[in-house]
Amino acid sequence: MRCGEIIAVGSELLLGGRLDTNSLFLTERLGPVGVEVRFKSVVGDVEDDIVAAIRTAARRADVVVLTGGLGPTVDDRTRQAVARATGCPLSRRPEALEGMRRRLATWGRPPTAAQLRQALIPKGAEVLANPVGSAPGFRLSWKSCLIVALPGVPAEAEQMFFLAVAPELAAESAAHERIERRVLHTFGLPESDLDGKLQGVVRAGRGVRLGLLASPLGVTVTLTACGAHPGTPKAPKAGRNARESVLDRLTRIVRRRIGRYVYAEGAETMEEVVGRYLADQGLRLAVAESCTGGLIGHRLTQVPGSSTYLDRVAVCYSNQAKIELLGVPEDLMRQHGAVSAEVAAAMARGIRIRSHAGVGLSVTGIAGPGGGTVMKPVGLVYVGLDTGENDRSVTREFRFHGDRQAIKMRASQAALEMLRRWLVRTGARVRS
Amino acid sequence: MRCGEIIAVGSELLLGGRLDTNSLFLTERLGPVGVEVRFKSVVGDVEDDIVAAIRTAARRADVVVLTGGLGPTVDDRTRQAVARATGCPLSRRPEALEGMRRRLATWGRPPTAAQLRQALIPKGAEVLANPVGSAPGFRLSWKSCLIVALPGVPAEAEQMFFLAVAPELAAESAAHERIERRVLHTFGLPESDLDGKLQGVVRAGRGVRLGLLASPLGVTVTLTACGAHPGTPKAPKAGRNARESVLDRLTRIVRRRIGRYVYAEGAETMEEVVGRYLADQGLRLAVAESCTGGLIGHRLTQVPGSSTYLDRVAVCYSNQAKIELLGVPEDLMRQHGAVSAEVAAAMARGIRIRSHAGVGLSVTGIAGPGGGTVMKPVGLVYVGLDTGENDRSVTREFRFHGDRQAIKMRASQAALEMLRRWLVRTGARVRS
Repeated sequence: MRCGEIIAVGSELLLGGRLDTNSLFLTERLGPVGVEVRFKSVVGDVEDDIVAAIRTAARRADVVVLTGGLGPTVDDRTRQAVARATGCPLSRRPEALEGMRRRLATWGRPPTAAQLRQALIPKGAEVLANPVGSAPGFRLSWKSCLIVALPGVPAEAEQMFFLAVAPELAAESAAHERIERRVLHTFGLPESDLDGKLQGVVRAGRGVRLGLLASPLGVTVTLTACGAHPGTPKAPKAGRNARESVLDRLTRIVRRRIGRYVYAEGAETMEEVVGRYLADQGLRLAVAESCTGGLIGHRLTQVPGSSTYLDRVAVCYSNQAKIELLGVPEDLMRQHGAVSAEVAAAMARGIRIRSHAGVGLSVTGIAGPGGGTVMKPVGLVYVGLDTGENDRSVTREFRFHGDRQAIKMRASQAALEMLRRWLVRTGARVRS
Repeated sequence: MRCGEIIAVGSELLLGGRLDTNSLFLTERLGPVGVEVRFKSVVGDVEDDIVAAIRTAARRADVVVLTGGLGPTVDDRTRQAVARATGCPLSRRPEALEGMRRRLATWGRPPTAAQLRQALIPKGAEVLANPVGSAPGFRLSWKSCLIVALPGVPAEAEQMFFLAVAPELAAESAAHERIERRVLHTFGLPESDLDGKLQGVVRAGRGVRLGLLASPLGVTVTLTACGAHPGTPKAPKAGRNARESVLDRLTRIVRRRIGRYVYAEGAETMEEVVGRYLADQGLRLAVAESCTGGLIGHRLTQVPGSSTYLDRVAVCYSNQAKIELLGVPEDLMRQHGAVSAEVAAAMARGIRIRSHAGVGLSVTGIAGPGGGTVMKPVGLVYVGLDTGENDRSVTREFRFHGDRQAIKMRASQAALEMLRRWLVRTGARVRS
């Protein structure tokens, strides 16, 4: 197993507040070609700092991937930093210039003086053509280390990684060195309870790591089969199939223990799973939201093709809107309050009947920070589901913690999970 | 200006896909107390790797903040790693134990054997009490470096940083070393055009850096006044006020050049700005969304207190819903298509009149990836605004690029920006 390090270059990345999608992508893709990313670093557009980061990385990693700092401005220092760190001087390379000229020509422009700087490549490095933008990248073998420089724009970095970096790394990696991963997304059980249920599944020294990661969307369980590296026990030197089957066997055991809380596996999201069930069963959905404010609709419509199964979403913040759009009786709200099981049921029923959809889903609750009382505290949420079965809506009460945003997220997840479980049951009934 | 490095510990952070909120928070807070974060590192739960990261950081930084790896499990290796990297052996510290016992007692539990491990602290380090959770942190002066270890849970790390780390760092920092930053959020102008308009505002050697950062929400302009460090020109050694006024003067120049595109400054978001105007003017808003699928409602309701000015949101994916909930004439959709200026106008008008709100806002468009045609391609979006003025809705056409998620985000931002500009104008009229 080769050790990988990612260095993201850019002062704006030090400021934070952005998801570093390049690192995410690279980590995901390097594992299957036998490179385990064990370090990530972020540095600003300061040449000395980039040089320091490259030197540190080259000492501890076999594969170093830099992203960013290849643009035409004087702030783009990655080329110079690699040249200084490795002692391979820059020179203008015809193949880099040619690729850039060709790309710019399709946009009807000659390269500017600044852009010509982008053709400066360290001696001995191989130029990587950029099929999307103008900045070429490069790959340099230095000492026992492979240094790869890619642009910071995710679409460009991804294309270049796929075309020019991944195939070679894959060819060099032994089958047993590849990292395999299984990811199971759960909702409804706290991390500590999941941890208890999974005790003893993964024993030390078997070459598989178990990880739990909690968020407002639930707890994600990750099983990773990986090669040996310092500090972790050695993995058995078996072939890929043998390792895969250990991983698959352990994943089966995990599913057996916590399967009813698993709503999705791998890269699939809750909204994709729910959408798949709705499409498969030819059902149309209508949603009535209060405290989630449109988040359920937003999440459902992130999925391409959702217009085939999502009819409408009514976000009824005011009581008047609940009366007018959903037909919730004013008396019901006066008697039980807008945040109550009774109103959740009436909302789900109302949106389903008015939209002629097959399923109605509703949420009403108190997202905070204001609006809570002793009897109805912040975090109290009711979810309603109306499917026309037994002529009544089903409701559930939740008490979530966290801030407004976390409560909205947990409430949307709880509502979609309630819908998913019903869809699983009806799907099973239809098939049997 | 002291150099800072943040080391985030946790194998799950190497997997990616999560926003590292701790780094964001720490970077924001360290600047004003005279520490410029120039490096960020991420390492897994591997003791050797954490030791390597600490040694590298201690060589190049004056202040090293570690987050994570202080929990009770055997995977939590930060304590051991600091002990090994610095040669300060661990011992169980009564003050750490006492704080933990007290906290657990309020939950009615004695510490478990695993939790007792959390009281192991490197020799010479000062224990930092955790006012939120059970894991204590610590602070250790080693060689010329300050090493701070905080828990990975953001709420705990933030509290401990504020209570026990920030005050001392502030006391140690000279006034002229503090980093000051001005952030202006713009929408409606491409990055390259903004760059052109801002040419020459910030000249080299003035100790102020100008940064542009594009996202689907627009382009963020950052002006940072910072101390000198290798690779950047030296800042003038003036007092804090002199530096602040340079920064304020430059910010004024930036505002003069691009002010009409600035929708918010600092940490404020578009939805907060719009909410503030609506609340100030006592106006109620109703929204009719199509392709944004609830995102506008979700964003508006992220703001506490939004129920006072947001009446309702109708997400009308189907034509039938547009007819029933908004009263859009069927003929109009047949004639112009659901994605048209005419339908956007009718949606904004319909939701305003039916809800009796003061303002109606609408969006209709093609988020893709399917559903586009030559005449109406993916990314075509119409925004409608109906305020009852002049008895007609105002509409605008946009052609956005990007994937489904980016188009939804840009469309929601364009709609809120159109609303904001109207609110600014009416606010000015009311005041004058």
